[in-house]
Order: sequence, then C-alpha cells, then structure tokens
Amino acid sequence: MELNTIYGPVQEDLAMVEEKLRSACQVDFPHLAELLEYSLKSNGKRLRPVLTLLCGKFYDYTPDYLLRMATAVEIMHTATLIHDDAIDKSMVRRRQPTVNRLWGEEEAVLLGDYLFAEAGALTASTGNLRVIKLFAETLKTISRGEINQAFNAFNLEQSREQYYQRAAKKTASLFAMATESGAALSQAPEASVQILIEYGYNLGIAFQIVDDILDFIGTEEELGKPVGCDLAQGTLTLPAMLLLEHYPEDNPVKRLFQRRDEPDSIRQAIELVRSSPAIIQECYQAASDYCDKACRDLHLLPQNASSQALSDLAAFVISRQK
Amino acid sequence: MELNTIYGPVQEDLAMVEEKLRSACQVDFPHLAELLEYSLKSNGKRLRPVLTLLCGKFYDYTPDYLLRMATAVEIMHTATLIHDDAIDKSMVRRRQPTVNRLWGEEEAVLLGDYLFAEAGALTASTGNLRVIKLFAETLKTISRGEINQAFNAFNLEQSREQYYQRAAKKTASLFAMATESGAALSQAPEASVQILIEYGYNLGIAFQIVDDILDFIGTEEELGKPVGCDLAQGTLTLPAMLLLEHYPEDNPVKRLFQRRDEPDSIRQAIELVRSSPAIIQECYQAASDYCDKACRDLHLLPQNASSQALSDLAAFVISRQK
Repeated sequence: MELNTIYGPVQEDLAMVEEKLRSACQVDFPHLAELLEYSLKSNGKRLRPVLTLLCGKFYDYTPDYLLRMATAVEIMHTATLIHDDAIDKSMVRRRQPTVNRLWGEEEAVLLGDYLFAEAGALTASTGNLRVIKLFAETLKTISRGEINQAFNAFNLEQSREQYYQRAAKKTASLFAMATESGAALSQAPEASVQILIEYGYNLGIAFQIVDDILDFIGTEEELGKPVGCDLAQGTLTLPAMLLLEHYPEDNPVKRLFQRRDEPDSIRQAIELVRSSPAIIQECYQAASDYCDKACRDLHLLPQNASSQALSDLAAFVISRQK
Repeated sequence: MELNTIYGPVQEDLAMVEEKLRSACQVDFPHLAELLEYSLKSNGKRLRPVLTLLCGKFYDYTPDYLLRMATAVEIMHTATLIHDDAIDKSMVRRRQPTVNRLWGEEEAVLLGDYLFAEAGALTASTGNLRVIKLFAETLKTISRGEINQAFNAFNLEQSREQYYQRAAKKTASLFAMATESGAALSQAPEASVQILIEYGYNLGIAFQIVDDILDFIGTEEELGKPVGCDLAQGTLTLPAMLLLEHYPEDNPVKRLFQRRDEPDSIRQAIELVRSSPAIIQECYQAASDYCDKACRDLHLLPQNASSQALSDLAAFVISRQK
C-alpha cells in the first residue's frame, strides 16, 4: 500500500504540519532562513509526525496542540539527522547534498542545536508537562544511543542485545515519543496511551532493522544515499552480525573492522549479504516479529480509520524499499 | 572582591548545585558517565547558576525548583561550550584538554546534545511553563547568535550594532535566562522580574566585552586557553573593530581577515591592542556602561544580601582577569 493512501485519515492535518514547518523558516536572518528552508523542505516520509497525528485521533481530537507536537517531532528528527550527517561527514541524504556538505560541519552542528530548540519551543507551547518532559527524556535517550554507537564503532564484540538496545534508544524512542505525545494530547486513557507507546516503540525497532537491511540490499537510487554507510562508519548492524555468524572464517566485516576504511571489504560484505537469502530472511523475520508486537493490542483501541492506518503502516515499514 | 566572598549568600545552595551536577553524572553507561564527569566537574566560575540562586532570594525562596534550574543553567552553558570547542576545534579550555581533543568531535557533538536534553529535563522538572518556554527560546537565541558568528567569520564589514546584537544573543540571553528563571521561580512581581532580566542582559553584554578584551590582553595562564582565539576563528570583536578604526592603513586584523590563517598577523594585532591604552580604555568603558545599566534599578528590589551580591558581581565582571 502507498504511503499516501495510508496517510489518508490525516492528510489535511499533515498539510497543516507542512505549513507550520514553513512558518518555522520565517526568521529575520536570511542566512538562517535559507538553512531552515533547505533542511525542513518536504522530501522526507514525514512518518513520525503522521504517527502523532494518527494517535491523536482516538479520543479528544485537539488539532491546535496536536499539529504543534507533530511539527516538533519532525523538527527534532531533522535535527538528529543533521547532527548525524555532520558527525559522519555524510555527503548526501534524500538525494540532496547534506547541510554539512553545503555549509560546513560548523553550521550543521549549530543548525541542529537551533532545531532542537525550535522543537522544544513547539513542544513547550502545548503547555502539556507530560509531553514536555517526554521530549527532554527522549532527546537524552537518543543522544545516549548515538554516543553508544560512536563508542562501539568498529567493535566486533557486540551482542544482539546491544544492537536492539541501540535501536531502541536511537530510533524507537522517537517513534514512541511521537505516538505517546499524540495519545497524551488527546486525553487518551492511560491503558490506551500504553498500547500506543508499545506500538511506536516496536514499530521503531522494526523500522531500524529494515533500515539496516536496506543499507545492504537497497540501491543508491532508492535510498537517496550510498549503500554500505553503516559499515563505512563501523556500525555493527543486525545483517552484519549475522554475516559474522554465518561466515566465521575470512569474513569481510571482520577484515573491515580490524583494518578500517577498506572499500573492498565493504563491497564484499554487501555482495555476501545480497547472496545470502537466509540472512536477509532472518532480518526481515525479526522486523516482522516487532511489527506483530506493535500491532498486538491495537484491537483494544476504538476501531476507526486511524487504527486501520496504524496497522497498514506496520505492513509498510516491512515492505518499504526506501 | 573575590568571587567566593560575593557568592556568600548562596554558598550553601551552590554546594547543592554541585551535588546535583554530580548526580547528573550517575548513568549506567560507564563511557557516558566518564564524559559527563569530565565536562561537569567543578572548574568553572559557576557564575550563571549563582545568578539564578541570587535572583531567587528576593521573594518566595523555593530551593527545590531553584536548585534544579540553577543546575540546568550550568549544564546548558556547558553544552554550548562543548559544541563551540568542537566546532572551533579548540584544544584546551579552563587549562584542560577539550572533550573534542580527548574523545573526538563526534562524541563532543553528541555529548553536547545529551547535555542540552539533560538541562531541558531539569528545567521541565520545575513544572513552570514560563521557565520551560524561556529555556527553549534561549537555546534558539544562542544558536542563532552562533550561526551569525560563523556566517560572519572573516568578514571585515561589520558594524558595532552587529557586534552588540551577537553578544546579546550568544551570551546575554543566557545570563538573562539565569536571572529571569530565578525571579520567576520565586514568584517575584513582574516589575521585579523585569529589573532582574535587565540586570542579567546588561551584565551578559558587559561580560562578553570583557571576554573579548581578555582574548587580547590576558595571559594563557589566566585564561586557561591561548590568547587570540577570536581572531584565529575570524570573529570580529569590539577590540578588533577599534583596532581597524584606529589604524585604518596596514592593519594586522585586515591582513588576517583578507588572507586567513596567519599567526604573524594575530601576534601583531595582539601587540597593537596591548600597546593602545585608548582602545583598551574604550572597551572597558563600554563594558562599564553596561554594568551601570545592569545595576541601575537594583535599588528598587528588596535590599538584602543578594542585591548587594548582584552589585558586587557587576564590579567583578569588569575587574576579572579570567
């Protein structure tokens, strides 16, 4: 199913989020306005704000606060991408040159800081202390996950538990923030909030696993960035872990991590994963299990277009090519 | 007057802020704990949290929230320094190697993000929406000031107004946040809050001017970092502007900004400022005027040990050697 179809129940709200993102670019400092327009323009999937909007449709629908929060979620996500790219010295994202490539790492770091603050200001403007605290704790969790990833770069001795913990911190925490904030802002009963937190969290892990598979089996055209980025950064993802298990001798991931910076090893690792259906299958199975877990209790929520969309999104996360 | 003496009225509170800073380092991820301990350990002046504590002593003194906010202010300040150092590739600060020098720019950026979030979480824990919104707006303002500075690096065509606007954004906004939050958390009447905002704002500008003077006339021993850092980064500060005005021909600042990266020009500019009492005097006069403005309405507040300390701090900001 196409994302546009799944987004149906919140299409109008999402258009207003786009409008709010454009408003966030209206600052009386032309250079900053240019940076903001470049980084907030509509070329992402907008998956996280859609989660907030969908989760806000089960109880008291309060568009004013919900739109602010959905916008905050997308801006926070953008800020983390800009810092990631600056840190990794990535040159391209979503088929566009990165902020650090166009304006330098210095401005990328500062723009990310500005966007974190803008997201915080939007969150604060909801006046809801629960989501405000959630916002700050989520940013702590994400940063912690990223520090863990940087600290463990090129470390071969990592368990699957570590991989899942990192996916939880780096990715699932923001998905869960997106769903929890939508639920909390619509005065959902606590049991329903918990179902939507579980949904966001497990969907986030599944999303990260698929991201890590696509970094091996996707195409540069589909991904909008080079394949093999994770390996180049020394990040040990699930497919790479399985590769190490399946081919314990003379393994390209092992060679890469031990000797660093060898494009040949990266190419070989990618080819080996692509020609190992068992590995790809095992990764997709793991992602699929998380999606099942995400959807397990959705039937306990009021059944409406949003609950259907959340189910459909889980299917999309597995089938997506980009 | 020594800082220790000026800090007298809040000495005990400051000890509890130090305790809270140590608590913020207690995380179950040893590498992050090490980064936090290194960056939050007690080797700064703690000027900004002291402002919050002093400003919270005029009306309803509520230590619980005040201590959290003072801690948040110091952590936010630390985060900005860590990002500044990472961006500038600075090697030393407060006589210690910078985080980016010891652990790399990548971890410095992520640690700064974590600390912004920790500061936000502490601010959120006050439950006071005014200070929460102030926190987010202040981080936006600071980032904007820093982006302006990066954008104008090595630009000779800058007005004094631009210089003061940048000082206001980069530095004074955090001083004003420190004072406003202390006042707001102690239920100060709005007129008093405004007096303390004005105090913080003007003190912050004065502090920045003195910082910029010391970057020319201080010693590496006193500053805890090399002199001439601003020039090396291409930042046009008030002393450098005056140097351009006083010596329009064959000026070392002009040579540096036009040709970049010439240690000789930096040395010559430093020597020229040091041997130009009129320039130093004019800068100190500007700082002193801001301090006078800062203190102008302090007599309208309840007169107590804190109001005296705020006056004394203004005098300290001018006389400080580091």
